[in-house]
Amino acid sequence: MKKKVGSLLTGSLLLASPVYAETSGPSIESLSASMDMVWIMVAAFLVFFMHAGFAMVEAGFTRSKNALNILMKNFLTMSVASILYFLVGYAFMFGSSAGGFIGTDGFMLTGYEDQVGFFAFQAVFAATCATIISGAVAERMKLGAYILLTVLMTGFIYPVVGHWIWGSGWLASLGFTDFAGSTVVHLTGALGAVVAVAVLGSRIGKYSKGKANVIPGHNIPIGALGVFILWFGWFGFNGGSTLAADPSLIPHVVSTTLLAASAGVIGSALYSYMKYQRVDASLTLNGALGGLVGITAGTAAVSLGGAIIIGIIAGVILVEAVTLIDQRFKLDDPVGAIAVHGICGVWGTLAVGLFAMEGGLFYGGGVSLLGIQAVGIAAVMAWTMGSVGLSLFIVTRITSIRVSREEEISGLDFTEHGSRAYESSGSIFNENNPEDNGEFGVGLLERLNEVSKSKDKPKRPTKPKTEVN
Amino acid sequence: MKKKVGSLLTGSLLLASPVYAETSGPSIESLSASMDMVWIMVAAFLVFFMHAGFAMVEAGFTRSKNALNILMKNFLTMSVASILYFLVGYAFMFGSSAGGFIGTDGFMLTGYEDQVGFFAFQAVFAATCATIISGAVAERMKLGAYILLTVLMTGFIYPVVGHWIWGSGWLASLGFTDFAGSTVVHLTGALGAVVAVAVLGSRIGKYSKGKANVIPGHNIPIGALGVFILWFGWFGFNGGSTLAADPSLIPHVVSTTLLAASAGVIGSALYSYMKYQRVDASLTLNGALGGLVGITAGTAAVSLGGAIIIGIIAGVILVEAVTLIDQRFKLDDPVGAIAVHGICGVWGTLAVGLFAMEGGLFYGGGVSLLGIQAVGIAAVMAWTMGSVGLSLFIVTRITSIRVSREEEISGLDFTEHGSRAYESSGSIFNENNPEDNGEFGVGLLERLNEVSKSKDKPKRPTKPKTEVN
Amino acid sequence: MKKKVGSLLTGSLLLASPVYAETSGPSIESLSASMDMVWIMVAAFLVFFMHAGFAMVEAGFTRSKNALNILMKNFLTMSVASILYFLVGYAFMFGSSAGGFIGTDGFMLTGYEDQVGFFAFQAVFAATCATIISGAVAERMKLGAYILLTVLMTGFIYPVVGHWIWGSGWLASLGFTDFAGSTVVHLTGALGAVVAVAVLGSRIGKYSKGKANVIPGHNIPIGALGVFILWFGWFGFNGGSTLAADPSLIPHVVSTTLLAASAGVIGSALYSYMKYQRVDASLTLNGALGGLVGITAGTAAVSLGGAIIIGIIAGVILVEAVTLIDQRFKLDDPVGAIAVHGICGVWGTLAVGLFAMEGGLFYGGGVSLLGIQAVGIAAVMAWTMGSVGLSLFIVTRITSIRVSREEEISGLDFTEHGSRAYESSGSIFNENNPEDNGEFGVGLLERLNEVSKSKDKPKRPTKPKTEVN
Repeated sequence: MKKKVGSLLTGSLLLASPVYAETSGPSIESLSASMDMVWIMVAAFLVFFMHAGFAMVEAGFTRSKNALNILMKNFLTMSVASILYFLVGYAFMFGSSAGGFIGTDGFMLTGYEDQVGFFAFQAVFAATCATIISGAVAERMKLGAYILLTVLMTGFIYPVVGHWIWGSGWLASLGFTDFAGSTVVHLTGALGAVVAVAVLGSRIGKYSKGKANVIPGHNIPIGALGVFILWFGWFGFNGGSTLAADPSLIPHVVSTTLLAASAGVIGSALYSYMKYQRVDASLTLNGALGGLVGITAGTAAVSLGGAIIIGIIAGVILVEAVTLIDQRFKLDDPVGAIAVHGICGVWGTLAVGLFAMEGGLFYGGGVSLLGIQAVGIAAVMAWTMGSVGLSLFIVTRITSIRVSREEEISGLDFTEHGSRAYESSGSIFNENNPEDNGEFGVGLLERLNEVSKSKDKPKRPTKPKTEVN
Repeated sequence: MKKKVGSLLTGSLLLASPVYAETSGPSIESLSASMDMVWIMVAAFLVFFMHAGFAMVEAGFTRSKNALNILMKNFLTMSVASILYFLVGYAFMFGSSAGGFIGTDGFMLTGYEDQVGFFAFQAVFAATCATIISGAVAERMKLGAYILLTVLMTGFIYPVVGHWIWGSGWLASLGFTDFAGSTVVHLTGALGAVVAVAVLGSRIGKYSKGKANVIPGHNIPIGALGVFILWFGWFGFNGGSTLAADPSLIPHVVSTTLLAASAGVIGSALYSYMKYQRVDASLTLNGALGGLVGITAGTAAVSLGGAIIIGIIAGVILVEAVTLIDQRFKLDDPVGAIAVHGICGVWGTLAVGLFAMEGGLFYGGGVSLLGIQAVGIAAVMAWTMGSVGLSLFIVTRITSIRVSREEEISGLDFTEHGSRAYESSGSIFNENNPEDNGEFGVGLLERLNEVSKSKDKPKRPTKPKTEVN
Repeated sequence: MKKKVGSLLTGSLLLASPVYAETSGPSIESLSASMDMVWIMVAAFLVFFMHAGFAMVEAGFTRSKNALNILMKNFLTMSVASILYFLVGYAFMFGSSAGGFIGTDGFMLTGYEDQVGFFAFQAVFAATCATIISGAVAERMKLGAYILLTVLMTGFIYPVVGHWIWGSGWLASLGFTDFAGSTVVHLTGALGAVVAVAVLGSRIGKYSKGKANVIPGHNIPIGALGVFILWFGWFGFNGGSTLAADPSLIPHVVSTTLLAASAGVIGSALYSYMKYQRVDASLTLNGALGGLVGITAGTAAVSLGGAIIIGIIAGVILVEAVTLIDQRFKLDDPVGAIAVHGICGVWGTLAVGLFAMEGGLFYGGGVSLLGIQAVGIAAVMAWTMGSVGLSLFIVTRITSIRVSREEEISGLDFTEHGSRAYESSGSIFNENNPEDNGEFGVGLLERLNEVSKSKDKPKRPTKPKTEVN
C-alpha cells in the first residue's frame, strides 16, 4: 500500500490548508485538497453506515430472543472503537514506526491534528474489524466479555496489523498488497472470531450426536436489508481507500466492487442450486458479502473481468466454507462470519497474487507476489490468533465469558437487558385496567376545552369504563 | 453563526455561475462553487434520509397497532414541510430582516432563485424540526391535528427561530452560537412536543395510581436501524452546516460528531448499567441520539476531547431526563423525544459556552458566551411554547386534537387508515375460497400454452379445487 | 438528452486523465474531471441503494410466505444486470450506432475503457429497469423464468430503448426529452411488467366472481422504509443524470425532485381521503414514488412550481391508476408497479411537453414537443411490449413460467428456497433436546477453565438436563 503510506507521510491529505481563506480566492492546491477531503468524508459516512448493515445481518440471522443483545453489541462496538481508536489505536497504527512493528506516537492525535479527516475514515474501519466478531459469538457470549474483546481488537490487535500493512510496517516494505483490507480488516476480524468461537463453544442445541442442526434466523428480510446496506457502504470502503479523489482510480475500484459482489451472488446462488437443488437464501446473501470481501484487496489492481472471476470463485468458496466450518470443524458461527470474512478474505488476498494486472501470476508476474501475499496472511494469522487466544485464556482464568445455560435458553435479551425486541403476541398491558381512571388520558387544555363545551356534549373523561369493549 | 449569515448575504453560495460554460473551460471560482454545491447536496440527501430514521425509531418504539399512522405522519411531515418551506418558510427565515425578528421577502424563492441548493438543504432541516413532534404525540393525536401543527411549525414557528439565529436576526447579532441546530432545530421541535403532549395528555394505561407503566415498543430492531440511519444522516446535518467544502472545518465537524455520539452511547449504557444493573437497550439507543443532539451546536467549536465529554454527559443526562419526564412530570413521550431533543438540546447549546475553544468558560473565555447561550435558549422557549400553546388552545376551542378512547384502544391504524401494518397471524384471505374458480389464476399466453399442450397433460385451470389440501 | 450524448461523444467524462499526476500539481481540467467523477460515483451509490428500497417495498407489500423469494429476485436482478450490462448491455446502449437503432461496439467496454465510471452509473440504472418487474410478478412467477426475463431486459430490451433516447438514437435526434428516465427506465420496466402479468395471470384468490380482493402486504413498515430509501436514492438517480457537477443544474434537479415527491405524497393522501374518507397508507406511499417517477423526465426542464403541480397530479393519477389496473383491467400487480412506473412514467414524459420552461405548451412552446414525447412513448410501448411478449410466448411454448398451484399456496419461500423468512411462532428447535448432551455447548478453553476450577464449583457441562425447566 505504497500509495497510502505516501499520502500519509507527506501529510498533505486533509490538511487544514491556510491557503483556503475567504478573502483571497481558493487556489488549485486548496481546491484539490478540498476535493480529496469531500471524497474521504463521503466514504467515511458510507463505511460508518456499514455498521447498520452488520447490525441488521446479525440480528436477522439469529433468534429473536437475542436480538436486543446483538444490537447493543453493534452499537457499543462502533462507540468503543471510535473512542479507543482516537485514544490509542490511531497512534499504534499510523504513528512513527518502531522497527516496522508498531506506531509509537500520535496518541489522541497529538502531533497529527492535520489528519483528523483521515482519522475519522480509519476509525470506522477499525470498528468494522471488531464488529465481525459479534456475529460469530452471537447468542451466548457475555456482553462484558465481548466489550473487553472489542477493546483489545480496536485498541491494539487490529492497529498492529494495520501498522504492518498500511502504516510504515514490515509487510508494507515487503510489497504485501491489500488495497482496502481483505486481510487487514476482514481476515483479522474473522481470526478473532475463530478463536472466540473455539473458546466459547457452540450454542446449546446446535450439535447433537455429532450432527449440526440448523438454527434459522428470525428475520431474514432485515438481514437482506443489512446485506444491501453493507454492499452500499462497501463502495465507500473500497472507494475511499484511494484516499484521494483520483479519477483514474475510483471508477475502476467502484466497478470492480460492483461486479465482484454481483458475481459472488451468482456464484453462491448457482452453486447452492447445483449442490442442494435450490437457491439458498442465506448462502446467496452471504455470497454477496463473500464477493465483496474477495475483491477488497485487489479492487484497484485487477481487471473488470478479473473481478468477476474473483467474485464467482468467492461465491463458490463461501458455500463450501460455510459447510466445512459448520459441519466439519463444528465451529458454531450463527451468521457465517468466519466463512465470509476469513475464508473469502484469504481468497481475496491471494487473488491479488494471481489476478493483479501488474505482478500477478496470470499476467506473467510469476509467484513472487503470491508468495508475499501468503507470508502476510500467515503473519496476520499468527499474530491475531495468538494475541486473541492469549487474551481470552487469561480472561477465562478469571471469569466465564459465556452466559449460563439458563440465560442462554431464556435468551440474552431478557437476562442482559431486561427487555425484548418485539411486542409480545398478547396485550402488552391491561388497556382496560380497572386502576386506570383515565385521569392522565386527557390533557390540560383538552380538559379545559371539555369543560367549556360541557353543556353541549357529554364529557369524555368521565365516561364509564364499561362503554369500552 | 456568522459564517452562515455571511455566506448567505454574499449570495455566492450555490450561485448558478455563468462562468461555468462548456465552451470555455471551468475557472477556479466556478470549480470552487461546484465543490461547495456537491458537498451541500450530499449533505441535504443525508439529512433527508434522517426522516427514514425518525420513521423507523418512532414506529419501532410504539405499538404495532399505530405503526401505519406514525409512518404516515412522517411521510406527510416531510412532504408538507418541503412545500410549505418553499412557499413561505424560507422567506420568513432567510428573507430581508424586519428588525431582526422575521424575514419579509423570498416567498417561493422569488428573488432568491440563485439559492435553490441552499433552499433544498434548509427544507429538509425544517422537516426535521417538525418531525420531532410526531414521536412524542404518537398513538393518540389525530392525523389532521398533527398536520395542522406541522404546517404551523414549518411555515412559521421554526422559520422565526431560524431567522433569529441563522438569518440576520437579533440572536445572531448577540453572538449566539448554534452551528447546526441544537437549539434551532432540536430544542424548537422538542418544545413543540412538550406543549402538544401537555395538551394531549398521556396514552390510556400509561399512568395508573400515579405510577408510570412501561409501554414497550413493538419492533426494537427497526428502531435500532432508525438510530443508525439518524447517526449516518447526522454527518450531513452537522457536516453540511459548514455550507462549503471547507477542508479546515469539515473533518473536525465529522470527527466531533462521531466521537460525541459514541460517547453518548457509552454514557447511557454505563449509567443505565449503574442505575438499573443492566444495559438498557432503549436508553442506550437514545444515548446515541442524545450525544448527537448535544454536539450539534458546538460541533465546529469544541475540541475532539471536548466532544467526548459533551457526549458522555449527554448520555447520562438522557437517562435522568427520560425518567424525570416520564415519572415526575408525567409527560407521556413514547419515544423519549423531549429528553433527546429538548434536554440534550439545551445541554448542547450551553456546552458551547463551556467547551468552545474560543470563548468557552473552560478555555478562559468567562461566562459571557454562556450567558448569551442561556438568553437564546430562554427566548426560543418563550416563543415556541407560547406560539404552539396559543395555536393549540385555539384549535382545541374548535375541535378535539385527540382520537376517541375507542379509537385509541383499537389502534389508529384501523381507524385512521383502515388497514394494519402487519399480516394478521391467521390466513389473510381464504386461499381455498370456494368462490375462487381460478379463472384469473392463469394468464393469457399461459392459457394458450395450456391449450396447445392439452393433449399431453391435464389442463391446470380446470383442475378441481379438491385436489388442494 | 443532448447533454448526455455530448458528454459521451467527447469522451471527456471520467477520463483517466494523465494530467493528474502526483509529481506535478493538479490542473484545473483534471480537478474538474475529478469533481464530475466524484459526483457521478456518489450518484451511482445512491442508485445502487435504490435496490434495497425496491427489495423492502416488494417484500413488505407481499405476503411473508414469499418474502425470501422476492428478496432473492432483487439480489439476482442487481447481480445479473450489472454483469450482463458489462458484457453486452453497455455496448448495445452506448456503442457506435447502427442507424440510430442499436449500438454495435464496446462489448465488455472494449475501446470504452475510459468510461468505466459512466458504465457503473448506467449499470445500476439498467438493474433498476429490470427490478420494476419483480414486484409486479411477485408471489407466483418461477425464479428461473424471472431470471430469464431479467437477462432479456438488461442485456437487450432496455439497452435498445436507452440507445434510442440516451445513445445516438433516432428518438434523441427527434428531440425526445427524458432527462433521467421516466420513459427509458420506468416506463420500459412497467411495460415489461404489464406483459409478464398478463401472461402469468393473477394470484390465486385475487379475483373471485369478478371482484378484486385485497391481499395485504405482511410488513408495511419495511415497505415504508423502502419508499424512503427509494426517495433518498432518487436524488442520485435524477441528480447524477446531469453527468457533471454542474452548479447551475444540480440544485434545481434536487429541488424539483424533492418538491414533486412531496407533492405526490400530498396528492395521493388527499385524493384517497376524498375518495375513501381515509388516508390510505399504501396509496400514499406509492404517491411518493408516483411523484418521483413523474418528475424524472422533466426534473431539469420544469420550474419548482411546475414540479409541485406535476407531483400532485401524479399522486392523483396514481390512485386512479391503481384502481383501474386492479379492478377494471384485472392485472394483478401486488405492489402497484405498473401504476407507479408505467402510468406515472407516461405522465412524467408528457408533462415535459406541457411544463418545460423551454418548449412546453404552457410556456408558449406549442404542441411540438408534446407530440415528440407522445411518439417516443408509443415507440417504446411497441418495442418493449412486442419484444417481451414474443420472448414470453416462446418461453411458454417450452415450459411454464408460473409455479404450481400447490407451490403458490404453500408459498414460494418453501418450494424455491427450502426455508422461510421469519422464525416460526413455536420454538425453532428443541432446546432441551434429550439428544443434546451439551458436548459442544462449551468451548475448549472454557472447558480447560472449568477443569481448573472444578474443585471449587460443579462443572457446568455435566450438569443434568433436568435442572433446566
